[in-house]
Amino acid sequence: MMKSLTEEILYKVINKRLNQSHKGTYGRVLIIGGTSQFGGAVIMNTIAAINAGAGLVTVATDPSNFTAIHSHKPEAMVINFNDDLTAYINTSDVILIGSGLGNRVDLVQAVFSAISEKKITIIDGSALTLAAEKHLSWPKGQLILTPHQMEWQRVSGVPIAQQPFEAFNLLARNKFTTKPIIVLKQFHSQIYTDDGIYELPIGGPYQATGGMGDTLAGIIAGFTAQFKTATLSDKVLAAVYIHSAIADELAKTQYVTLPTQISHALPTFMKKYAD
Amino acid sequence: MMKSLTEEILYKVINKRLNQSHKGTYGRVLIIGGTSQFGGAVIMNTIAAINAGAGLVTVATDPSNFTAIHSHKPEAMVINFNDDLTAYINTSDVILIGSGLGNRVDLVQAVFSAISEKKITIIDGSALTLAAEKHLSWPKGQLILTPHQMEWQRVSGVPIAQQPFEAFNLLARNKFTTKPIIVLKQFHSQIYTDDGIYELPIGGPYQATGGMGDTLAGIIAGFTAQFKTATLSDKVLAAVYIHSAIADELAKTQYVTLPTQISHALPTFMKKYAD
Amino acid sequence: MMKSLTEEILYKVINKRLNQSHKGTYGRVLIIGGTSQFGGAVIMNTIAAINAGAGLVTVATDPSNFTAIHSHKPEAMVINFNDDLTAYINTSDVILIGSGLGNRVDLVQAVFSAISEKKITIIDGSALTLAAEKHLSWPKGQLILTPHQMEWQRVSGVPIAQQPFEAFNLLARNKFTTKPIIVLKQFHSQIYTDDGIYELPIGGPYQATGGMGDTLAGIIAGFTAQFKTATLSDKVLAAVYIHSAIADELAKTQYVTLPTQISHALPTFMKKYAD
Amino acid sequence: MMKSLTEEILYKVINKRLNQSHKGTYGRVLIIGGTSQFGGAVIMNTIAAINAGAGLVTVATDPSNFTAIHSHKPEAMVINFNDDLTAYINTSDVILIGSGLGNRVDLVQAVFSAISEKKITIIDGSALTLAAEKHLSWPKGQLILTPHQMEWQRVSGVPIAQQPFEAFNLLARNKFTTKPIIVLKQFHSQIYTDDGIYELPIGGPYQATGGMGDTLAGIIAGFTAQFKTATLSDKVLAAVYIHSAIADELAKTQYVTLPTQISHALPTFMKKYAD
Repeated sequence: MMKSLTEEILYKVINKRLNQSHKGTYGRVLIIGGTSQFGGAVIMNTIAAINAGAGLVTVATDPSNFTAIHSHKPEAMVINFNDDLTAYINTSDVILIGSGLGNRVDLVQAVFSAISEKKITIIDGSALTLAAEKHLSWPKGQLILTPHQMEWQRVSGVPIAQQPFEAFNLLARNKFTTKPIIVLKQFHSQIYTDDGIYELPIGGPYQATGGMGDTLAGIIAGFTAQFKTATLSDKVLAAVYIHSAIADELAKTQYVTLPTQISHALPTFMKKYAD
Repeated sequence: MMKSLTEEILYKVINKRLNQSHKGTYGRVLIIGGTSQFGGAVIMNTIAAINAGAGLVTVATDPSNFTAIHSHKPEAMVINFNDDLTAYINTSDVILIGSGLGNRVDLVQAVFSAISEKKITIIDGSALTLAAEKHLSWPKGQLILTPHQMEWQRVSGVPIAQQPFEAFNLLARNKFTTKPIIVLKQFHSQIYTDDGIYELPIGGPYQATGGMGDTLAGIIAGFTAQFKTATLSDKVLAAVYIHSAIADELAKTQYVTLPTQISHALPTFMKKYAD
Repeated sequence: MMKSLTEEILYKVINKRLNQSHKGTYGRVLIIGGTSQFGGAVIMNTIAAINAGAGLVTVATDPSNFTAIHSHKPEAMVINFNDDLTAYINTSDVILIGSGLGNRVDLVQAVFSAISEKKITIIDGSALTLAAEKHLSWPKGQLILTPHQMEWQRVSGVPIAQQPFEAFNLLARNKFTTKPIIVLKQFHSQIYTDDGIYELPIGGPYQATGGMGDTLAGIIAGFTAQFKTATLSDKVLAAVYIHSAIADELAKTQYVTLPTQISHALPTFMKKYAD
Repeated sequence: MMKSLTEEILYKVINKRLNQSHKGTYGRVLIIGGTSQFGGAVIMNTIAAINAGAGLVTVATDPSNFTAIHSHKPEAMVINFNDDLTAYINTSDVILIGSGLGNRVDLVQAVFSAISEKKITIIDGSALTLAAEKHLSWPKGQLILTPHQMEWQRVSGVPIAQQPFEAFNLLARNKFTTKPIIVLKQFHSQIYTDDGIYELPIGGPYQATGGMGDTLAGIIAGFTAQFKTATLSDKVLAAVYIHSAIADELAKTQYVTLPTQISHALPTFMKKYAD
């Protein structure tokens, strides 16, 4: 049975922060993505993750993107994604890989191999396609996949026409040792978790613009790294919900809602759920 | 008979988006322009096209412009305009070429040749002058030309003193196989279409600042790519109208209206026409 | 007799723009300055000149500054200041040279030599010091000098203790063939013109921060290039006045007033004087 | 006895500026830090120092950071931190070293050696760790150290469990010829001065995000350089207080308070204390 997500998920997940805490408390996020051509994707990941409240964000990307990242968010640290990332992976709580990665299958493979069981990994964009096409072994640990319908078809091997419900079950049963959380992006996105399947009843076509998914992936990273008491599923559900709830709010006065605008609204929008 | 454009064109063209849609629905725009010296022109194209609601925007430009583009709009993708652009042209719905292209006649010629009959091409700035001076063959498909008066003289071969009406007819009859839409930029711009000739009764001298035309070209690209039910002529007319309507609104409180300010106002300004 | 500047100068100089005009009507400004180390200076020149309403602004600077200029103002064009600037000088109405130029005496000398009698040249910052130390020949045409007190001492050869009034006369009589307009920057700046000597009664210590002079120079360039009916002296007086009038306005709610904030306020602040 | 800081410290330190003053009056700050990877740290130093009211700010950093610094703050000057910094140190009033310096022990050592007795030096981040690990000689002159608890343990050699009070005394007595001011960053930060030990009763976990300390260090630099009548201790106390007071204000409407937002609020927030 598909359950409909409600605003309740935000009250459940976004808690008042404890006084005795520091930036490490709110998680270390490692974002891996952004070739020179698609550098905007990791910029949008980064703006979203930081504004969502991640404690520390490091971006492994093409060096040509460093300046633009810092122009938006000096709060982020940057590293060359061609360097050995093992140490960075080991000291991170959450890894987001794939936004704007182009055809860097070498990089995806190396990162997937280096991820240990203790990590949470969000797999987005080209990393999904590359993993499917090249039959890569998925990383250990907890996985969150954020495919569009076409990416989901590639990953699952099940045609879109037969999606979503059965496809997920088939894939989850056969291809993954631990069941990943699947955020299937579409009109009224669906989220597949161990706790059930959820549908997002909000959002709208004003969100249909390039970079919206990169922003969602960044919010998921920020929420996953930061919140302590909620389950992983609930954190993902809350991220998906808030992303469209902000868009709905902006759409009251705008024809299109740009990805970066959604990120900028996060600190204020999150406030009321924590009181 | 010259017809006077009214706000009605915005109600006609800007429709509420359909729920069942995604970013591909709103068109793929390829912007080609921006030498190192004139990189600002494609930045302004890009800000305008994205804020106007284009689904996906790729900018083919000098690599020295990548960082500044991403500082303004991480939503854009970027490619080196010295690479082979054929694949990018083939997967685009709308091509905007010429803002800040300097004397890159080789590039203009290569792009013009690669454009197939199914594309909509907006030709701006230096691409117009180069095409006229070097007697290039115009691209196939539907054309939108956005000349200043002097550029129009170069393209049409008809002196400014005899413009605008007769010049257009002469040119349209003799030089183009399909009649292009001409946006003749001047005080009270005129737009030549198959449906007639229109005059813009709004706008003012607060718009007389560098980059205003680059912004207009970007809005035309965004509107052309995005709206489905209107005719191509109406989409261009709506773009020309909204560009000056926003300037008029800003001019109520400003002495000059900067190009980037007009673009930033687009999402909010467009809202009321869609309800 | 020292005359006290009043807000009247803004009503006198800032006129409603004529309908039949285009960006060329509002002047071509060439800004020359900005080594890699002092690139911020030309950025502040540029933001000020564009927001003040200059028609077209080109910045000749170290190429390492191009991206930061375009991140602030895609409306500007950029060129390498090590290229031959003669053609750019010839097609400009107003040249602003010297902000952040470091010790580039070669460049100052080459530009000074290339300037013809028809140009208006604003000489700021290091160009003043270099011209004085290296005994360069001043450019032809109309000059506007914007020295701090120490720079003025270097240029005039008269000690600060004996300034301002007598020093100016001495210098103006002996060193310049045409009398330059001198903007002597200090607490209550003084402006020496053919029409008399003026004192600025407004402004305050909230302006005492790096870059304030670069912003003033940019406003002078924008006003000088743009307004048609006022005398050159009046345009300079208006630029000096508005720079501090905006600072006074901002200082009602701020402890310090940053140079870029003054520039951003220009379009709105100028509005009321044109109605 | 630990004293609790109150808003009174802001009224005491932030004075109305004198009319007869210029940018030199408000101090020259030299910020040294920012490898390519950690460039965001010096950007946040810089935004904070300039908005806090420092007269002139120069940033010695990796050249890859120049453009991003100027995108945020054209008001700053930049130099390559691999150049000889002696002349820059000698002409500065306040030196802030260490934010985002990575493992550049060579640079820390060279700067420490070049600092004369007349300077005020703020030592932050990696400079603290490197100084402790490599047993560097501390600079002459007045020192302000801004350690996290773990950095303080490294510097003092006293385990966190035994901190804070006794550790400070032990260190201050044995390791430094002149007693440094210690800003021990933690929940309710403590500041150790010759005038006593102070505790910050404000601030909250919304500040627990990367870059918050870099922003604090920048405010300390700006306050230390700028204010003339207060003691050095009071200037540091005021900087620490205002940093969290602004965060508290922002937190009324935001879930997290980003470092750059705190800096942007400085000019307005400081205003009321100067009247």
